[in-house]
Amino acid sequence: MLRTLNRNAKDAALHAMADALVDQADRIVSVNADDVVRARGNGTSEAIIDRLTLTPDRVGAIADALRDVAALPDPVGEVVRGYSVPNGLRIRQVRVPLGVVGMIYEARPNVTVDAAGLCLKSGNAALLRGSSSAAASNAVLTDVMREALVACGLPADAVQLVPGDSHESVKHLMTARGLVDVLIPRGGESLIRSVVENSTVPVIETGVGNCHVYVDRDADLDKAVAIVMNSKAQRVSVCNAAETLLVHAEIADAFLPRLLAALREAGVTIHGDERFALHATSAGIKFAEVTDEDWAAEYYSLDLAAGIVDDIDAAIAHIQRWSSGHTEAIVTDSQSAAQHFIAHIDSAAVMVNASTRFTDGGEFGFGAEIGISTQKLHARGPMGLTELTTTTFIVTGDGHIRT
Amino acid sequence: MLRTLNRNAKDAALHAMADALVDQADRIVSVNADDVVRARGNGTSEAIIDRLTLTPDRVGAIADALRDVAALPDPVGEVVRGYSVPNGLRIRQVRVPLGVVGMIYEARPNVTVDAAGLCLKSGNAALLRGSSSAAASNAVLTDVMREALVACGLPADAVQLVPGDSHESVKHLMTARGLVDVLIPRGGESLIRSVVENSTVPVIETGVGNCHVYVDRDADLDKAVAIVMNSKAQRVSVCNAAETLLVHAEIADAFLPRLLAALREAGVTIHGDERFALHATSAGIKFAEVTDEDWAAEYYSLDLAAGIVDDIDAAIAHIQRWSSGHTEAIVTDSQSAAQHFIAHIDSAAVMVNASTRFTDGGEFGFGAEIGISTQKLHARGPMGLTELTTTTFIVTGDGHIRT
Repeated sequence: MLRTLNRNAKDAALHAMADALVDQADRIVSVNADDVVRARGNGTSEAIIDRLTLTPDRVGAIADALRDVAALPDPVGEVVRGYSVPNGLRIRQVRVPLGVVGMIYEARPNVTVDAAGLCLKSGNAALLRGSSSAAASNAVLTDVMREALVACGLPADAVQLVPGDSHESVKHLMTARGLVDVLIPRGGESLIRSVVENSTVPVIETGVGNCHVYVDRDADLDKAVAIVMNSKAQRVSVCNAAETLLVHAEIADAFLPRLLAALREAGVTIHGDERFALHATSAGIKFAEVTDEDWAAEYYSLDLAAGIVDDIDAAIAHIQRWSSGHTEAIVTDSQSAAQHFIAHIDSAAVMVNASTRFTDGGEFGFGAEIGISTQKLHARGPMGLTELTTTTFIVTGDGHIRT
Repeated sequence: MLRTLNRNAKDAALHAMADALVDQADRIVSVNADDVVRARGNGTSEAIIDRLTLTPDRVGAIADALRDVAALPDPVGEVVRGYSVPNGLRIRQVRVPLGVVGMIYEARPNVTVDAAGLCLKSGNAALLRGSSSAAASNAVLTDVMREALVACGLPADAVQLVPGDSHESVKHLMTARGLVDVLIPRGGESLIRSVVENSTVPVIETGVGNCHVYVDRDADLDKAVAIVMNSKAQRVSVCNAAETLLVHAEIADAFLPRLLAALREAGVTIHGDERFALHATSAGIKFAEVTDEDWAAEYYSLDLAAGIVDDIDAAIAHIQRWSSGHTEAIVTDSQSAAQHFIAHIDSAAVMVNASTRFTDGGEFGFGAEIGISTQKLHARGPMGLTELTTTTFIVTGDGHIRT
């Protein structure tokens, strides 16, 4: 039974799984090559082909991630609250595994191993449903991990692929209330929306990020340039990249020429409001008039919606209207502006003088991440091992009864 | 804006609401009397009539509950985790309100005030949908509270009744994803199931309790009698009352004559297995043969399903099969038996040598309770103010960017 395994047993299994993946890297890479050929034949984009492709080095990195998980503390058994009440009852709220964690995800086969490792470490069974384009890769990765589990004396079914390629199997997973304790969809917005709308199993929404950077009147302009560039352009295909820039009107003349030169250099297209148009023209950067679709967009590309605001409250109002609740950043040297922004922004993460790209389990020191929750219940922001647990109240008395 | 109110403002409003309820107790009791007359006319049971009825004393008690909430610490702003990471970023995970909390509940008008008070204290707007039988009572209670809020300079809409009496309004509430942050149904099993199945708003399930008491071979029999009696018979209409008793075979002969005499005295009917039948006959207690429906039942009455088990693992297996995951108790003086039971029981609360009736926000020292969660996500067990919050990660840097 997974929930009663001690840490040694779980860590030994994680290391055995890692070793087995490395030992069988050739087999894994060869099976993966078939998936890649099929995907190319289906006209899959090169970006997705890249995410799908496994090499011996990538298999090694996936195995290392399992070893990293083994090195993390065991979340199970942590006493969240512990106290006595006046009648002498001793109450402890203790972390326990959720039970069965279902994952529905796209393309990347490394998620198969990451999710299996995080679930095992937190004492949960993993029920995995990857995309059909990675079906053979996911099957061989799962086989190798299951063999390693059995060799350690653990049940193979601690890690399972949901059988079948059809949408029927996803439907079964979404309606297995009572059998599956939580479903975590990872992927595009339509996948996530479909799971949220059709699942009777509790869902944790992840990942949709329409992140904003607001450059305040009191910003340090050097830092502001660095933070906007990093938030937008360091890696565009991730949920914590910035999609909208808001600039305080009073610093626009001093700030925008420098920023737009850097953005132009990086190949960024501005989707801007009227006041932005003039600056864009002077800077010679690609420019389009901003629409409501732009304000709402998660571009995943070198596009940036941009507006000039008269004050911090206009920036906050814009973010309240358009944000997906992932991450918003303010660049300011004013303590009161930072406090005001924090008080009024209701997102999973608020960055003060830091890039939006820091909203990440690894950057937060969680060691590993099963996704970034953009909902408010259970978990919000990067989810690590702790977020794969629930709690039980253990109440100890000495014949106590209620009067 | 509710989320930025400081504690003083919230506590003042709670006291003003309490004072207003007491001031207008006559008006409230008179409106409530109309609901009671209508309910009687519809043939409503006296038990439900009793829950529906308000008296000046009961209005006073409802007002006092608001004052108790005012005395509790403010959950908003609590730093759940706070640390620096190696690059110098300072990370704080801070409690913030959920936003809008929807409650769907039955009969008791006091829930209208309790929910409003707990939501206000935790910085949330309360969107309340009581039963139609209490519609007039809920309307007058809400009016009084809204007037008090306005007198304190707060928005009346911090507390709102969902308009309309029809099922349409419940449907709107259940599909108001993005507008309502969480729905908490409180009431019978069919209400809760309907909300879980039809809501696209995240739901916290509450309250279905098929609670078990297992009397181990190493139980202190005096304590066991007291705990079984208290768990079953102290108050039968509540979710933390026990519905099933499991007794270790080796102590049945010594224990059951004493227990059954006490249960008979209390008017309890045993729904027992074959081995229980003999003991029941000797004790002269009402007896029926147990069925699967009994093992699954939340009786809310002086009925008790009962079985004799050969060992602790048989008790655990029975509970794993039939429990609703609310509360299970073990009575034992054996440390290893207690540990074994705790390790294998996956419920919101596990009692060791204490009555199941202790699973309660007040008994746990939470000061107030919005319900008892029997699900695993977000909150499990009694839910107080903390469980009406989410968190935001506030990350402070000095121009930090990712490399």
